Amino acid sequence: MKVPLPAAPAADAILMAERLKRAAGCVDDALDALLSGLSLEPRLVAAMKHGTLAGGKRVRPALVLETAALFGPPASGLVEAAAALELIHAFSLVHDDLPAMDDDALRRGQPTVHIAYDEASAILAGDGLHALAFALLSGGQTAELDPALRLDLIDALARGTLSMISGQMRDLAAEGRFATERPALTLEGVVGIQSEKTGALIAAAVDIGARIGGAGQDERRALGDYAARLGLAFQISDDLLDIAATAEEAGKATGKDAGAGKGTFVSLLGEDGATARLEEEIAAGLAALARLPAPAPFHAWLIGEMKGRRR
Amino acid sequence: MKVPLPAAPAADAILMAERLKRAAGCVDDALDALLSGLSLEPRLVAAMKHGTLAGGKRVRPALVLETAALFGPPASGLVEAAAALELIHAFSLVHDDLPAMDDDALRRGQPTVHIAYDEASAILAGDGLHALAFALLSGGQTAELDPALRLDLIDALARGTLSMISGQMRDLAAEGRFATERPALTLEGVVGIQSEKTGALIAAAVDIGARIGGAGQDERRALGDYAARLGLAFQISDDLLDIAATAEEAGKATGKDAGAGKGTFVSLLGEDGATARLEEEIAAGLAALARLPAPAPFHAWLIGEMKGRRR
Repeated sequence: MKVPLPAAPAADAILMAERLKRAAGCVDDALDALLSGLSLEPRLVAAMKHGTLAGGKRVRPALVLETAALFGPPASGLVEAAAALELIHAFSLVHDDLPAMDDDALRRGQPTVHIAYDEASAILAGDGLHALAFALLSGGQTAELDPALRLDLIDALARGTLSMISGQMRDLAAEGRFATERPALTLEGVVGIQSEKTGALIAAAVDIGARIGGAGQDERRALGDYAARLGLAFQISDDLLDIAATAEEAGKATGKDAGAGKGTFVSLLGEDGATARLEEEIAAGLAALARLPAPAPFHAWLIGEMKGRRR
Repeated sequence: MKVPLPAAPAADAILMAERLKRAAGCVDDALDALLSGLSLEPRLVAAMKHGTLAGGKRVRPALVLETAALFGPPASGLVEAAAALELIHAFSLVHDDLPAMDDDALRRGQPTVHIAYDEASAILAGDGLHALAFALLSGGQTAELDPALRLDLIDALARGTLSMISGQMRDLAAEGRFATERPALTLEGVVGIQSEKTGALIAAAVDIGARIGGAGQDERRALGDYAARLGLAFQISDDLLDIAATAEEAGKATGKDAGAGKGTFVSLLGEDGATARLEEEIAAGLAALARLPAPAPFHAWLIGEMKGRRR
């Protein structure tokens, strides 16, 4: 008698990772075509491409695609909406990496835009990616979607972007960058900062997917709760990764957050406490998904993966 | 017998200047209310206010309001569309003033955002103003406008913003900032740069006003031609102002463009040549306005004022 292998979960994980890769490939193609078709100053386009096409898991656009897919076959304009999310994410990374901000020379193992080009080009490339996201949603490429829906998507994206920017400012303040107004580092404060900084755009991605898919109010609420948990799980796992990884493994400078005296889940809860909190967030995210009328295997896998990132 | 005074033109000019001030006041109020109502990190909001509310003639929003007014009474959402234009303009100034860009410490006689706050705050404030412009056009405040029209406005604004950013990159390249690729300084090149850098947002302002007003194709074309002339006239008069004004009068560092070895209308055409070209642009702008079915006294006055800026 053969010993049965635990084949099902492993096969599922492979399948889901494959789905994430497929979504990423699809969005990468759309972004490449979009950026290559721009009639703008070539140095600007090159710097925008460097900030967008140099890898990345494409979690946010995958959430747009997979959330819409929960409610039906892909609508026209869906890939463009997913690409718009990634453009906003890319713009935020290009600006966050600047010397005046987080001062990072490496991202995904590659030189950041201000290193590969220069600071002025990085500022403008970030600005260009930001504007392009809105041009993409308002222009011809998403024209088959209902105009009122398109406005809702733009509104969700603009609001998510504002929250993300606000969260980045709060994060810098929490680091003590603005000497006179360093807030006390409480767990509540860190949750608040990360909900804005990381959570808002993840929430926007899920909500934009849900709106395009035509989700009802209850479904959008359940997905919103899931997205909030996913955002926190993502950040906690990032904090854990930050203490665990070597610079080589992570492809970027690590141990920096602790060095900056920044409040993180790990500095406030300890490694074990942060791991426990991560598991709580994952469980709560899965519970939110259970309120949906049908299973959401990709979403369940993705939030579970936040544990797997800890190497 | 009394000698008749040339009362009409002078009175007109006063009236038009009053209209510009009224438009500015109206947009300032809208911007102040909008920014004060934001639930974002207070330092971010304060830096965004500093970059927006510290003066400025509000030419772009006035163009939105006055262009729409050519075609009928003010529509709901018009002031918000005008404010969105100013938010994009303000974001571009905050970023252009950064040390890595034009490195200006003064703007309108006040410390620039990165001086009053710091570089990181200025980068984020610019990003916040940028996102807020799109949130304003897609959110509830312009809800009474037709959704398809609102999408057109967002598209026009996003495209104008992209061109403006591209023009700024070309301008830095023309300064020789990126040593390997300094283009030859031709008049055609300078016209091209300025049409993007200054012209695109002025054109977007006029077109957005025309679309809200319900202008027809011919009227939009005439106004587009006017806007292109106005943008160039504005830039030529800026170049002339740059050599003529003292730092105190202009409220910002002057003579900088010439110092940077930058191609300007003055460096390429000389002061007299640039003045002649300015007059040509004004005449062509007035000719474009003459193609409209009714007079456009504000627009005619505004382009004529480009001469008056030379003190």
